[in-house]
Amino acid sequence: MDPRIREHAETVVDHSLDLSAGDNLVIRVPGAAEEFAVALHELAGDRGANPLYLTYSDRAQRAYLRASDGEFETPAHHHALNEAADAFVIARGGPNATERADVPPETTAAYNRAMKPVQEERLDSDWCLTQFPTPGQAQLAGMSTAAYENFVWDAVSIDWADQREFQSQMVDILDDADDVRIRSGEGTDVTMSVAGNTTINDFGHANLPGGEVFTAPVRDSVEGEVHFDLPLYRQGREIEDVKLRFENGRVESFSAGRNEEVLAGVFDTDESARYLGELGIGMNRAIDRFTYNMLFDEKMGDTVHMAVGAAYPETVGEENELNESAEHVDMIVDMSEDSVIEVDGEVVQRDGTFVFES
Amino acid sequence: MDPRIREHAETVVDHSLDLSAGDNLVIRVPGAAEEFAVALHELAGDRGANPLYLTYSDRAQRAYLRASDGEFETPAHHHALNEAADAFVIARGGPNATERADVPPETTAAYNRAMKPVQEERLDSDWCLTQFPTPGQAQLAGMSTAAYENFVWDAVSIDWADQREFQSQMVDILDDADDVRIRSGEGTDVTMSVAGNTTINDFGHANLPGGEVFTAPVRDSVEGEVHFDLPLYRQGREIEDVKLRFENGRVESFSAGRNEEVLAGVFDTDESARYLGELGIGMNRAIDRFTYNMLFDEKMGDTVHMAVGAAYPETVGEENELNESAEHVDMIVDMSEDSVIEVDGEVVQRDGTFVFES
Repeated sequence: MDPRIREHAETVVDHSLDLSAGDNLVIRVPGAAEEFAVALHELAGDRGANPLYLTYSDRAQRAYLRASDGEFETPAHHHALNEAADAFVIARGGPNATERADVPPETTAAYNRAMKPVQEERLDSDWCLTQFPTPGQAQLAGMSTAAYENFVWDAVSIDWADQREFQSQMVDILDDADDVRIRSGEGTDVTMSVAGNTTINDFGHANLPGGEVFTAPVRDSVEGEVHFDLPLYRQGREIEDVKLRFENGRVESFSAGRNEEVLAGVFDTDESARYLGELGIGMNRAIDRFTYNMLFDEKMGDTVHMAVGAAYPETVGEENELNESAEHVDMIVDMSEDSVIEVDGEVVQRDGTFVFES
Repeated sequence: MDPRIREHAETVVDHSLDLSAGDNLVIRVPGAAEEFAVALHELAGDRGANPLYLTYSDRAQRAYLRASDGEFETPAHHHALNEAADAFVIARGGPNATERADVPPETTAAYNRAMKPVQEERLDSDWCLTQFPTPGQAQLAGMSTAAYENFVWDAVSIDWADQREFQSQMVDILDDADDVRIRSGEGTDVTMSVAGNTTINDFGHANLPGGEVFTAPVRDSVEGEVHFDLPLYRQGREIEDVKLRFENGRVESFSAGRNEEVLAGVFDTDESARYLGELGIGMNRAIDRFTYNMLFDEKMGDTVHMAVGAAYPETVGEENELNESAEHVDMIVDMSEDSVIEVDGEVVQRDGTFVFES
């Protein structure tokens, strides 16, 4: 086994999850990541945790969704499992990022609605989403498998204490803030309130790699236009050049340069999918290239991302409304040029460089 | 996809499980059987069932057990899952049958004790245990992979209605029986009562392939000696030439020609592991060779098998005691030569041929 696989598993168990004796752990990794599962099982045994080994396959999920009648109920067995589990580690790493390209978006939307209570049980527990480097994901990034392995294992093994300290400067700014304005190029000028909400310092817990700070916009406060100029994969399809126009927090019009119908499917899932659930600011300088993988892309050091759909409950203050949705779709704005983040009228980042960076 | 994979999945879903809309289905298959999982997911979608995809890996399980301190608790999340599930399909098909050869038997015994409530929840539901043909299993059988695929898919696709009718003749004999005596060669002469217990006709439901009839001996009635002259794999180790001597139903002495300590570990799991939980009679003439795989070997047409440990509740009459154990270890006697099965003093099989066979 590549020693970096065991190190990756140790980071998950000891840093991301802080796994304890007696914890009921769900390990959900794809077939290509069996060695990662072996390392996680070994650590679970050593720490006295109880592992249960789930997997997923986009091929199997595609077959299920296409064969269904498009109506779904919340699966009681999966819900009971997630309710009783204490910790989750979920690794991505499929052989083909476009495996679900021929599933109707409305089928996926209906499935996501049915699965919402199952997901909520997981989000209420300790969980860590991470990546196992596979040839398919390397291909998507335009990299050799060996170079992609280096990229992934370098990004998950940075000094998380240092990263936490660096990011805390931005947390302090946002936690005291009322209003945020983001401008970039011709297409993005958006304002929102974050008053009363909490900013989370993501230093590798729920996401590994971590490397962002994030909060929730006040639900009805978002005004203006955003051009998400970096693409994303959703349901096995690349969505490019998403443009959203917000009024009173709601997406009143949208367009995409490619696969717009997938985006439309997201907004059709539920009404709350039309509201922002997250504002995130990428701060991980170790992630120095775009790889078509949101887990990494949204952490890049000169990007901001916004997610339509569900807000993380820990980010929403008691006075503010929690946006609850079966969707959570992150989209990214490149802030490296002709861009500025202002907080309460003060510039905190210009062209990708924070004011507190030398 | 090999069309036989889809046919195999159809037999599981429509014959073995009779899957219905709304059923919460657990699919647990190893990595090598992903195509089988794809076919099962497609059928689940078509039938309106809710699939949850579990897997297992002997490598991961070995790593977990060896890293543990040898003490285990019942995992609450796995128990909750099995309690809420309606149906289970479990496929075997690992790449290395000896993967767990270096796990201490007492560790496995302790783990099995902790998992007993989890297993009982599954046994109370509809379940089907089957085999996916892999190169590793073919190697164990001394066959090419292609020939082994033919063997497996031929055995699971026989006419189960015909097989059921054939086997019902033996069910009728055993259901009315009081005493069974089995003699074979020099080493086997054992008597037991089956009075008040029920004989099950296994025509491909809980096991696919099926092809046996089985019941439970009355717990304290077993007397005599058995030489199990066909080997078995247990915990990744081949156990040969098991000899058991019963008094008042209890195994009072035992030996094995190889890996006797694994057998000792079984008997150390709990006191009930020293009592027989099952008497089975193989009747599937399509399984015409020994392949070191109990799922097939115990169904061979001229064998009987007995399992130490847990009895199946459906086989034990209300008046009789149910043997409850965390173990269930099947062992086989070759009945093809110098052998006879007598029921209430009448010969029902001699040298592998039933009295009702032409």
